[in-house]
Amino acid sequence: MSHLYKNLRIHQVFGANTDVGKTIITTALVRASALKQKNVFYLKPVSTGALLDADDEHIKRHAGPYKNLVHTKCLFRYDDPVSPHLAVKLATADGKNAVSAPSDETFVNTIAHYIRGRAAALSSQGGHMYVETAGGVHSPTLMGTTQADSYRPLFLPTILIGDSKLGGISSTISSYESLLLRGYIVDAIVLFRDNYYQNWEYLTPYFAERGVHVKAIDSPPSRLNDAAENFALTEEYYTKLVPQSLDGDISETVQHLDDCHTRRLDELDSMPRRTLDTVWWPFVQHGLVTSEQDVTVIDSAWSDFFSIYDSPPKTAPPSNPTSLLKPQLDGSASWWTQTLGHSHPSLALAAANAAGRYGHVMFPQATHLPALKLAERLVYDGPGKGWASRAFFSDNGSTAMEVALKMALRSFSIETEGTFEPSAKKDMGIIGLKGSYHGDTIGAMDASEEGVYTCEWHQARGYWFDPPTVSIQKGRVNISLPPSIAGLFGSTSETMESLSHVYDVESRLNTLLATIYREHIERTLQGLLENGGPGLAALVLEPLVMGAGGMIFVDPLFQRIMVEVVRDSKIFQSPLPVIFDEVFVGLYRLGHQSSGPLLGVNPDISVYAKILTGGLLPLGVTLASDRIFQAFYSTNKTDALLHGHSYTAHAVGCQVANTTLDTLGELVESAAWTEARRKWTPQGQEAQSSAWSFWDPNFVESISCLDTISEAMALGTVLVIKFKDTDAGYASHSAQNVLQSIKNSAGDDQTLSAAPGGAPFGIHYRTLGNVAYFMTSLNTQQATIDSVENRIWDSLSNTTRTS
Amino acid sequence: MSHLYKNLRIHQVFGANTDVGKTIITTALVRASALKQKNVFYLKPVSTGALLDADDEHIKRHAGPYKNLVHTKCLFRYDDPVSPHLAVKLATADGKNAVSAPSDETFVNTIAHYIRGRAAALSSQGGHMYVETAGGVHSPTLMGTTQADSYRPLFLPTILIGDSKLGGISSTISSYESLLLRGYIVDAIVLFRDNYYQNWEYLTPYFAERGVHVKAIDSPPSRLNDAAENFALTEEYYTKLVPQSLDGDISETVQHLDDCHTRRLDELDSMPRRTLDTVWWPFVQHGLVTSEQDVTVIDSAWSDFFSIYDSPPKTAPPSNPTSLLKPQLDGSASWWTQTLGHSHPSLALAAANAAGRYGHVMFPQATHLPALKLAERLVYDGPGKGWASRAFFSDNGSTAMEVALKMALRSFSIETEGTFEPSAKKDMGIIGLKGSYHGDTIGAMDASEEGVYTCEWHQARGYWFDPPTVSIQKGRVNISLPPSIAGLFGSTSETMESLSHVYDVESRLNTLLATIYREHIERTLQGLLENGGPGLAALVLEPLVMGAGGMIFVDPLFQRIMVEVVRDSKIFQSPLPVIFDEVFVGLYRLGHQSSGPLLGVNPDISVYAKILTGGLLPLGVTLASDRIFQAFYSTNKTDALLHGHSYTAHAVGCQVANTTLDTLGELVESAAWTEARRKWTPQGQEAQSSAWSFWDPNFVESISCLDTISEAMALGTVLVIKFKDTDAGYASHSAQNVLQSIKNSAGDDQTLSAAPGGAPFGIHYRTLGNVAYFMTSLNTQQATIDSVENRIWDSLSNTTRTS
Repeated sequence: MSHLYKNLRIHQVFGANTDVGKTIITTALVRASALKQKNVFYLKPVSTGALLDADDEHIKRHAGPYKNLVHTKCLFRYDDPVSPHLAVKLATADGKNAVSAPSDETFVNTIAHYIRGRAAALSSQGGHMYVETAGGVHSPTLMGTTQADSYRPLFLPTILIGDSKLGGISSTISSYESLLLRGYIVDAIVLFRDNYYQNWEYLTPYFAERGVHVKAIDSPPSRLNDAAENFALTEEYYTKLVPQSLDGDISETVQHLDDCHTRRLDELDSMPRRTLDTVWWPFVQHGLVTSEQDVTVIDSAWSDFFSIYDSPPKTAPPSNPTSLLKPQLDGSASWWTQTLGHSHPSLALAAANAAGRYGHVMFPQATHLPALKLAERLVYDGPGKGWASRAFFSDNGSTAMEVALKMALRSFSIETEGTFEPSAKKDMGIIGLKGSYHGDTIGAMDASEEGVYTCEWHQARGYWFDPPTVSIQKGRVNISLPPSIAGLFGSTSETMESLSHVYDVESRLNTLLATIYREHIERTLQGLLENGGPGLAALVLEPLVMGAGGMIFVDPLFQRIMVEVVRDSKIFQSPLPVIFDEVFVGLYRLGHQSSGPLLGVNPDISVYAKILTGGLLPLGVTLASDRIFQAFYSTNKTDALLHGHSYTAHAVGCQVANTTLDTLGELVESAAWTEARRKWTPQGQEAQSSAWSFWDPNFVESISCLDTISEAMALGTVLVIKFKDTDAGYASHSAQNVLQSIKNSAGDDQTLSAAPGGAPFGIHYRTLGNVAYFMTSLNTQQATIDSVENRIWDSLSNTTRTS
Repeated sequence: MSHLYKNLRIHQVFGANTDVGKTIITTALVRASALKQKNVFYLKPVSTGALLDADDEHIKRHAGPYKNLVHTKCLFRYDDPVSPHLAVKLATADGKNAVSAPSDETFVNTIAHYIRGRAAALSSQGGHMYVETAGGVHSPTLMGTTQADSYRPLFLPTILIGDSKLGGISSTISSYESLLLRGYIVDAIVLFRDNYYQNWEYLTPYFAERGVHVKAIDSPPSRLNDAAENFALTEEYYTKLVPQSLDGDISETVQHLDDCHTRRLDELDSMPRRTLDTVWWPFVQHGLVTSEQDVTVIDSAWSDFFSIYDSPPKTAPPSNPTSLLKPQLDGSASWWTQTLGHSHPSLALAAANAAGRYGHVMFPQATHLPALKLAERLVYDGPGKGWASRAFFSDNGSTAMEVALKMALRSFSIETEGTFEPSAKKDMGIIGLKGSYHGDTIGAMDASEEGVYTCEWHQARGYWFDPPTVSIQKGRVNISLPPSIAGLFGSTSETMESLSHVYDVESRLNTLLATIYREHIERTLQGLLENGGPGLAALVLEPLVMGAGGMIFVDPLFQRIMVEVVRDSKIFQSPLPVIFDEVFVGLYRLGHQSSGPLLGVNPDISVYAKILTGGLLPLGVTLASDRIFQAFYSTNKTDALLHGHSYTAHAVGCQVANTTLDTLGELVESAAWTEARRKWTPQGQEAQSSAWSFWDPNFVESISCLDTISEAMALGTVLVIKFKDTDAGYASHSAQNVLQSIKNSAGDDQTLSAAPGGAPFGIHYRTLGNVAYFMTSLNTQQATIDSVENRIWDSLSNTTRTS
């Protein structure tokens, strides 16, 4: 993935257009570098056209007095003097070349391999490398992907060669913006000092305002027909441009690039200390994180991978250096948010477009297209389909849950008018499950039991059932029953044929277990009502999985029956509003847009965040049925839902959400999804299993059989591994300790490699006490998943053997 | 501002580069349009070079059989065949032209004036207009601003002429991205079908994926030397390209553009109804907003202006049509968030860059540059300077306040270990002011008194003082005292010499009023402590102004003394943590980075949001002193501040915040700020007044003298006008009713115009019961402020006369 070496400074050279002088300026840079460094590398990943005219040949010819210091290389060469994507087509069509079109991954891996090789050979000697691209920033590479996108995994710092001709101001600025949109660091813009168009006069202050170094250099001489004369003239130009001293424009730029490199290294090196000194992390005990080594420095991220700074030991010799930036799989999908991978260009562009059209505009009594379109798709075609009538926007899952609670409490209090005295409204409570978690704001927290997460002002407002849970234990699908239910059932668990059977809720409604669930829930609630317990006013569920509570997979049948009971007029004078907190589980995190169809019941209110914005920025939404909406509808201003945040329905978030949902719509139909569903469908079963995962069923089963593991489970993108540990709970470190070995990349063992750029990757993962979980994006490549499975398996089976 | 007419479809034509065939393709579009419309307008805002070669002359020459239908116009013409910004320099330097360089505003206003004139003259007849830009999308216009930026106020739908030559794939995509970054709607990409480079073959599917129409058309013939022959050849090309039927590629594109136009009109027209059907707005009583007329449709926004859809009356004849999009000043700064105006390109680019480099990356125990830099600047150089040691990120002001409360309660409970029984911790309370508001999540709400905003679960946890307030009444600066203090002081108010004196807190510490404040606060708190009231654990203040509570300007001396008293060891065994909720007032909203220096005391915890991200998207931050941080520091995981949101410290928000703070740093030193400060500094006073505003002091004073007004006040960007109304409070509609007239644009009265594009603008404003407030961005132009003052004055003085 990203490449950064202490002794080898690398820059990629992009052009603001074709024919802007990329090669000439790079030649000058190479010569100026050779004045400072004993090793100067020039890489032309792709060259098209006659060898004689090739850019790497030009560099070789004009290395001047530095011939021995300059090493050139071309990786993919095609004869036809056309764009690489056409050249490769011609080459593969007529069989002139043996190779077929290399994939984007091969392309990037080949460059990465070259870079790694040179860096490793350098030892303690320093060097510079220039990687010259072809054409403009968005010219297509071999597979047709544009260069700005296809080079992105390498995340090399960039020199942009500006366009000095007519129209060049525009193309230089646009190219710069396209590079920025891909997250690139643009260290310098270099262009010819054309005295007629004077673009450099405009561009220098323009980019100075934006903090970018611009250097204008003398234009090259016009090309002569006679090759020898031409060579001499060109050589004269270079000699003048790069005198054999460290003076001159080009040497200044080389010095600037060196300074940028040093600054970046220093900055990366200082970030852990500086962060430890000023940042207060969420959910982190700073007393346990005091060493710089414990801070993950994320330099950039792409697809499913962080690029993290791996600081070199201060004492070790700088021999055989590897990149200071290492790929690390984002194994928790960055707190369950990642959807299409990091730095997805279409999300960046969607964000930019909304920022450029609206910025943010205030929402009450107003409308704008991104918010309206998002509301409509969520209500009509999304998780609200068939039951919701309204979308209420807020900023995250926690605020969206507070909105949901305010909706439910008000609506129940109005529907049962007279039942709750004004003072008793404060004691309205909810029904939930032990292990629930709905966010960290105090109101959302009050819908959960007291626990480690709760704070001074927390009040557990309600009653929480002990849930029966689903897991795979020693290869068998098992429903574990809490004591209260086990007593009635006569056993602490039931073994199920397959996960597919567990999640076929409809078929289980007439089982003994269903009857017992219903009886248990009814009796408990009746007892609470009779004994003047909390004034029950709503049912609040995380359907299918309680995430933060420890990735507890709840028996869906139990949740189905809970919903039925709270809507039963035998028990409640008015059906209790039902809230589905789908912040974690919704929008396909578990393979389903929403849980309603799986459970066979719809909520009155449901809540979404996380995946909603494709893993880019915060936005939350609360969907509500018309019943709920009507409770606030009157001609009295103060009856309204008086809740709002300044950035409610911010255009950037809504537009990014729309783009995300568009893309999800395509993914759902993709071959990868179909194949995953197939794997999890029991043989002989006609309908595709609604319980399926991107994780391999055999892998999950095998993990569950290990001695150190008490259970495993997978649904959709989520894999959960629970360790045997007497000291369970949030404070436990057991999962963290056992899996430590997968965090770091496995050295240079290429067999484990699947990160783009071919580097072996580490795995960044999160634990909840004795539970480790892993989560993919919704478009993670199969090879990556396979590789993670192998790494986990190796780590756990080794532990098992030695334990 | 934005232009959109039912009968006149307008498109601006941008080029992916210079010399890509903009004029040729526009000529073809003009001819194809003339097949459908009786009026086709071609506008070349700026032309450089010889008249004979001018683009508008080419159009005129080649209007072919449609000469009578085609109207061409050039607004700014320069002789030198160079970029407009150079041409205007040459022209003004040698005095060849009488004009000096027109400002960006004049430039845009001149185009707008032309468009308005043509639209008005059209009557019920239909028409098409093409506005051809010069060079590439980012080529500079007359003042040097690039076209993509300088045309932005007009927000015309766009045709991008693609580049069909070598390198053209890249320049076309980059240009498209630059347009999207400015929010433009790109309806079509048209380019020549160059059979060698075949760019169209690549670009068609590329843009189809992105939902953009691409049309490739035949390339024009090579230019001949003989003028007559050249004319004939070119005419033949056009005739073939645009046959006198509605067939052919160009006619297809014209039809597509018509469809885009119709779709946009239909969409705008349907948005109010669709929004009323699916959206649940914050703080809106939907029972009072049932008419489509009551929905503000925001099509785009730029600088301080919304562009709102003003639906035409269905019955009125479409004569003398004005633009369906009207500028409306964002008079509440979009819920107090706007900082640099809407759609600021540098914020859009910052957002895009962070999205392209990181997306979002999870934050616990990790670090990334945007978050680290933001934390450092807030703590070391920002509002935390001198007292804060840590920055804790969350998603908005409300969540950041919840974090602040959790911090304060925990720290006080630890410092007073043994004082609060575990059960008593739930009853820890805060000291505040009546009228306080800290956000809508229930925990933040619990730090306020019961009121209209509060919900079922709200519990007022604390004690709230009645505050003395500052205002301008009948031209005099007045401190109004609540009864409790008035009794001690012997008067219900004190008249002050100037606002400057009121906010010179230090000089007032030894006044009689200060002594009385202190005595009152001390006695009240001692009384509460002796009578076993709420276990007071923190002081929570909105310094200077309580915003949502009704824009109440609190006497800063009172707040200063409150802080001193709660830190007094005679009263509290341990100093109470002090929270400054600066979500509204901080980061220069009131002219000061933070209120600490003004009040002469620093908090232990302070909270920022809104301006933090320049008015683009949600981000909140809580700053804390080391004292607070240490209360959570241990080696026990569960002692940590267990609060977090998935998108904590999202890179996009942090990067946008850094760019905002950079820009604010420059604004603070600007001439506009210096001039505003000067106006508010009393004559003869040496030091600049710390109480100052962008609103004119004489205007504020005059407003306060009107019969219908009880008081007025201004600080920084904020202007507050309080109406006399017996039915005050949140439910009151009085302010809303009185000011109704300023909401709509004042017809075509150009004397009131100050919106870019020269259109008269309406004012979108918010009220809090009987209080109206107006708020500028931090870079609003003086002309805009003057204009708003005039509008308010006219509206209010008319009301006064007639009341």
